[in-house]
Amino acid sequence: MSEPSMPKTDSGKFFEDFRVGLEIHHATPRTITLGDVAVYNSLFGSRFAVQSADTFAQKIGYPRSPVDDLLVFHVVFGKTVPDVSLNAVANLGYADCHFLKAVYPGDTLHSVSEVIGLKENSSKKTGIVYVRSRGINQNGDTVLAYVRWVMVRKRKETAAAPQEIVPELPKGVDATLLGRACPIINVAAYDTALAGSTRRFGDYKAGEKIDHIVGITVEEAEHMIATRLYQNTARIHFDHFTESKSRFGKRLIYGGHPISLARALSFNGFGNAFHVAAINGGRHVSPLFAGLTVFAWSEVLAIAELPGRKDVGALRLRTVATKDHPCADFPYKVGDEYDPAVILDLDYWVLIPR
Amino acid sequence: MSEPSMPKTDSGKFFEDFRVGLEIHHATPRTITLGDVAVYNSLFGSRFAVQSADTFAQKIGYPRSPVDDLLVFHVVFGKTVPDVSLNAVANLGYADCHFLKAVYPGDTLHSVSEVIGLKENSSKKTGIVYVRSRGINQNGDTVLAYVRWVMVRKRKETAAAPQEIVPELPKGVDATLLGRACPIINVAAYDTALAGSTRRFGDYKAGEKIDHIVGITVEEAEHMIATRLYQNTARIHFDHFTESKSRFGKRLIYGGHPISLARALSFNGFGNAFHVAAINGGRHVSPLFAGLTVFAWSEVLAIAELPGRKDVGALRLRTVATKDHPCADFPYKVGDEYDPAVILDLDYWVLIPR
Amino acid sequence: MSEPSMPKTDSGKFFEDFRVGLEIHHATPRTITLGDVAVYNSLFGSRFAVQSADTFAQKIGYPRSPVDDLLVFHVVFGKTVPDVSLNAVANLGYADCHFLKAVYPGDTLHSVSEVIGLKENSSKKTGIVYVRSRGINQNGDTVLAYVRWVMVRKRKETAAAPQEIVPELPKGVDATLLGRACPIINVAAYDTALAGSTRRFGDYKAGEKIDHIVGITVEEAEHMIATRLYQNTARIHFDHFTESKSRFGKRLIYGGHPISLARALSFNGFGNAFHVAAINGGRHVSPLFAGLTVFAWSEVLAIAELPGRKDVGALRLRTVATKDHPCADFPYKVGDEYDPAVILDLDYWVLIPR
Repeated sequence: MSEPSMPKTDSGKFFEDFRVGLEIHHATPRTITLGDVAVYNSLFGSRFAVQSADTFAQKIGYPRSPVDDLLVFHVVFGKTVPDVSLNAVANLGYADCHFLKAVYPGDTLHSVSEVIGLKENSSKKTGIVYVRSRGINQNGDTVLAYVRWVMVRKRKETAAAPQEIVPELPKGVDATLLGRACPIINVAAYDTALAGSTRRFGDYKAGEKIDHIVGITVEEAEHMIATRLYQNTARIHFDHFTESKSRFGKRLIYGGHPISLARALSFNGFGNAFHVAAINGGRHVSPLFAGLTVFAWSEVLAIAELPGRKDVGALRLRTVATKDHPCADFPYKVGDEYDPAVILDLDYWVLIPR
Repeated sequence: MSEPSMPKTDSGKFFEDFRVGLEIHHATPRTITLGDVAVYNSLFGSRFAVQSADTFAQKIGYPRSPVDDLLVFHVVFGKTVPDVSLNAVANLGYADCHFLKAVYPGDTLHSVSEVIGLKENSSKKTGIVYVRSRGINQNGDTVLAYVRWVMVRKRKETAAAPQEIVPELPKGVDATLLGRACPIINVAAYDTALAGSTRRFGDYKAGEKIDHIVGITVEEAEHMIATRLYQNTARIHFDHFTESKSRFGKRLIYGGHPISLARALSFNGFGNAFHVAAINGGRHVSPLFAGLTVFAWSEVLAIAELPGRKDVGALRLRTVATKDHPCADFPYKVGDEYDPAVILDLDYWVLIPR
Repeated sequence: MSEPSMPKTDSGKFFEDFRVGLEIHHATPRTITLGDVAVYNSLFGSRFAVQSADTFAQKIGYPRSPVDDLLVFHVVFGKTVPDVSLNAVANLGYADCHFLKAVYPGDTLHSVSEVIGLKENSSKKTGIVYVRSRGINQNGDTVLAYVRWVMVRKRKETAAAPQEIVPELPKGVDATLLGRACPIINVAAYDTALAGSTRRFGDYKAGEKIDHIVGITVEEAEHMIATRLYQNTARIHFDHFTESKSRFGKRLIYGGHPISLARALSFNGFGNAFHVAAINGGRHVSPLFAGLTVFAWSEVLAIAELPGRKDVGALRLRTVATKDHPCADFPYKVGDEYDPAVILDLDYWVLIPR
C-alpha cells in the first residue's frame, strides 16, 4: 500500500535537516489572554503581587499586571518544539536568555529561531543543534530571546555531517543588560505588606541560602494541562501508551514544569522579586514524573545594581528543585555529582525593589 | 415520612414525556468567555492559527479569533442533556449538523430543541427520541443546528407508546450549504508558515488517508473538567461511587471528549483546515475511559468547491479515533465490524484556504 | 552552619504571636478575572443562570454576571491562610458571614483580619484564635466579612498565655441584614425556563428536605487546581510526600472544596436560589480525600422576607455533604453523633426571586 499521507504529516526535523543560519518562523501564533493567565495561576499558585493584581501593578507604574515571565517563556518555547525538538533525545541546556519587553494579556506572540551551531556526535546517530529563539509580539518587538541546545536524532546514520560550528555562549547575562522588560517603578508606592514580604534588595547578600519549605506534588492531569496551554506538542509528555514501553515506563514531565513550580515556591523567601529578568543557564538534572513532590531552595549567587536605576536591583539566584526531598539541608552536589534528588539547577536573575 | 422534595428535583424526562413537536427551551444560558476558551485549549491543545491568535484571524478578515467550533458544539449540546438525555441508555447518532454563525468570546448562547421523531423499541422498556437542537446567540441568531437521536428509558413499561414518527435525515450536509459561519477570507493574507502547514485545498484528494501519529492519554480530572466546562451534567461522567457498580465499573467519558481530541490531533495533517463547517454523522463506536490513550487518523472522503467562493474549499473527512492503538495501519472495520480499538467514527466537513 | 535564611522565610504565626486587636493586612491582592471564573466553573460545574450569562444578569438588573459568591469567599479566605492558619491544627468554624457587595470580573480584592478572641487550650500546646476577616475591593468597599476560629499550635509550650477573650457570636445572620450584595432585581424579567427551575420563594416551606441526587468524585488534580486558584497555600493540600507520613496518609482536601461542590449540586432543587447572601455557620465534620464521591442534600430551615424588598426572599438552608453515600435517606446525625458519611454541615441563607 502506498502512503499518500506521509508528506502531509509533520514528523519533525532530524539533525541533517538543520544548517547554520537557517531561520525558522514557527507556528502557531498565540494571543495570551486573561484566561491563559488564570489557567497558569491555577496550576502553579504564584503569589507575586505585581502579576496578581492590576491595582498593585498600576500603583508602581505598570499599565496593568504583566503576564508571568515564565508563562511567556513556555509559550515561546512551545512553538519551537515541532521544528526543533520533535526528534530530540535530550534538551541539553539554556543560555543567554533575556526578557526584553513586558507582555500583557491580549498580546499575540510568535516565535522565530535561528540555527547558530551544529555538532555531530561521535556515534553519528545524533547531533547537537544550537538555536537562538525569539518571542515576538504583534508589534514586531522581541519580548524574549534565548539560546538552547538539544541533541537531535539523525534520520540516517550515513547522512553527511555538516561543518561543526559551536557558538561561544556567555556564562551568564551581564547585569548591565537587565531590566528592559521592567518599567521604572515607583518604589515609594510598592506596598511590602500587600506584597507579603518586607525584604528588599538590600536585605539579601551573596552566599545566603533559603529553603522554600513547601512541597507540591504533580499529577498527570496538571502537567499535561500546563504543557497543552503552551501548545507544546512533544508526545513524550502526553502518550502513556507509547511511553509505558519506553526507558522510563511512563510519561515524562516537560522540563519547564518544575521551573514554574520552583519559581512559585520561591515566593517564600523572595516575595518581592517580582520579575525574572534573565536566565543565565539551566540544567534538567534528572526527569520528573507524576506522583512525585517538588521542593526547592535557592542560593543568592550575586547581587547587582542596575546602571542608572535607583528603583530596582538584581539578585542572581541558583534555584535547585528536588523530587521527594525537602530542602532544609540544601541538597545540591556531592563532589561533582548531583544529589540524586535534584531535578533542576537553574541560574537566573530576578529584579527586586530597592 | 412524606417526600415533599421530590417535585423540586429534576430527574429528567422519560420516553413517554416526549411528543413530536414539543419545543424545549433549555437552561442555562452561558456567556462564552476568553476564560472558557483558555480552559478548553489547555485540555485539548489545539493549534489552528485562526482560533489561536487574534492577529492571524484579523489579517484574513475575522474581527478576532472565533471560539473553537467544537467548544460551541459541546456548550450547546451540554444544555440539552438535563431535558433530553438524563435518562438515556445510549446516544445513538448525530446528523445534519450545521455551523451557521461564528461565535466570539463574550457571546451568550442558549439552546432550544424540537422533538422531531419518536419510536418505541420492541422491548417496550425504551424508545428512540429524535431532536433537532439549535444554539442561539444573544441576538437571536442560530449559530449551530443539529439532529441527534438517543435511546431513552420509559418510566413505566406499560405507558402508552406515542405514534411512531421517524424523521428522514440527510446522509450528509450538502456542500452547497457550507460556510455560513466563515466570513469571506483574504487568502493572500493567510500565512501558511505561521499556520504550520503549507497544504491548501488543492493539495488533498479524495481517498487519501493521513495518520495523525501522536497519542494523548486522558485523565479523570481532564474529562470531568471539560464536561463541567460545558455544564453537561450527565452523572455517568462524574460519579465514581455509582459507576463503580455499573456495567463498566468506572466513569464513562463524555463522547464529545474524543471528538475534540481527534480534532486537535488532526492538526498534524490538516493544519490549515481551520473551520469545522458541518458534521454529517458521528458514531461513538465504543466507550472511552480514563487512562487510555487516544490516537486518530483521517480519510478524505470528498472535496468540494463552495458555490460563489474562491477563498476556501471544503474537505469531507472521516476521522477515526482509537484507544491504545496507534493509527499507522488506519484501523477501521473488519468486514462489517469495527476494529475493537475504534472508539469514534466521525464524518464532517472542514473548510481550508484555496 | 549558620542559617542566614531563616528570617526571610515565612513559617507562619503561632498562637503566642496573636493578640486581640491585632489587624493583619494580608498579601496578595488579586484581580479576579473572567479566566478565574472559567477555571472555577470548570471545576464545579455550577449552573445558576445569573452567574452563567451576562445577558440573563443584565435583564434582571445586574451590570453583568457577578462572580460566584463562593469563589469570592475562597479568594478572601485563601489570603488569610499564611498569616492565620499556616500552623493550624484544625479549622473549627465559621460564623457571621455576610456577602456585602457584588464582585465583578476585573475587581481586585485583598483581605484584612482582626483578631477578636484568644483562648489557650488546657494542653498548653495549642490555642484558639478568633478572627474577623474582610475582603475589600479596589474602591475600599468591604465585599465580604466573616468570623472564623482555628486551633493554632504554640511555638513553645511555656510561652505565656494571653488574656482569654472569647467573642460572643450570633447563632445566625439576621434576615433583616441580608441582600446588600444583590441589587433590586426585575422579577418580571427573570425567566424561570432559562434558569432551569420554576420554583420561586413561595414554593418552599420550612422543614422540607431535598436530595440533590447526583454525586461528583474529586480527583487530586482538581482540588489542587482549585486551591491554587485561590492562592491558598496550606501545604497539607499539596504535598503528598509529607502527608503520606501523616495521620491520614494522604493529602487533605481544602474544606472549601466540598462547600463549592455542594452548592453546585444544590442547583438540582434550588435552581433559582442564585445568591448566597450569608453563612450562619459551618462545620467540616470529617475530612475529604481524593477518589471519594461527594453527594449532598438540603433542608429548608427557615424562610424570610427581606424588609422593604418585594423582588427576592431568603431561604435559610442546611446543606449536608457526604462522601460515598447518596443522600436519598438524608443522612445527618444519629443521636448527637454525625453519620460517619457526613463531611460538611453548612447553615446559610440564599436569595431567590418571589
